[in-house]
Amino acid sequence: MPAWLDQIQWNIDGLLPVVTQETTSLKVLMHAWMNLEALQKTVQEGKAVYWSRKRQAIWTKGEVSGHFQWVDDIYLDCDCDTLLLMVKQTGGIACHTGRHSCFLMKLEQETWQTTEPILKNPEQIYNDPKP
Amino acid sequence: MPAWLDQIQWNIDGLLPVVTQETTSLKVLMHAWMNLEALQKTVQEGKAVYWSRKRQAIWTKGEVSGHFQWVDDIYLDCDCDTLLLMVKQTGGIACHTGRHSCFLMKLEQETWQTTEPILKNPEQIYNDPKP
Repeated sequence: MPAWLDQIQWNIDGLLPVVTQETTSLKVLMHAWMNLEALQKTVQEGKAVYWSRKRQAIWTKGEVSGHFQWVDDIYLDCDCDTLLLMVKQTGGIACHTGRHSCFLMKLEQETWQTTEPILKNPEQIYNDPKP
Repeated sequence: MPAWLDQIQWNIDGLLPVVTQETTSLKVLMHAWMNLEALQKTVQEGKAVYWSRKRQAIWTKGEVSGHFQWVDDIYLDCDCDTLLLMVKQTGGIACHTGRHSCFLMKLEQETWQTTEPILKNPEQIYNDPKP
């Protein structure tokens, strides 16, 4: 295995958390997970590939929606166990609910208030052909 | 339990991942974990309190270094299982290595290159009295 992959401290399930941030706006778009294969594919293909813990499968972000994340830079943290991905977000929509960011609720007076607007109806996103 | 806490989907260990971003610079500073008590304390005290998985203990960020994180806003994601904390970073140093951000290495030509400068020697941070 190449040295840069060998340095990574995977968790007990062979995964590491990934924070994805939009290069232009610096908005944090989402939080997901990668295994070794997902990280290798991300680097090879230049677009974000995650590991879906729910589906237990490799998941190319945008494969259904067309909302690919084109990778500008990849950062590793001081403990070598978390990645920060800087990306160009196709369509400006990272969230499966049709929003820019997955961090869509803000704590206000002990209530989660939705602060991110829906930019595109999810039904439209997932039924339309890819752009 | 208040409704806003009840909505949160904790993982099997009773934790949830937290992404911490600096409000002014929008720099992603670190990635950590919270349990219920840590989140309650964070909200009550207005500064970031995490759960240290290594020490299996509540951990007020800055308790030794003085580099507290004063919370401006807290966001929850679409799956209700990840938080985004917007903070003011005391001393401009979030990393225990004396750097602004924990995401200190960038992947360049298949090598992790350190891109974040050391702003203060860690020995000085952890031996000096708190500011």
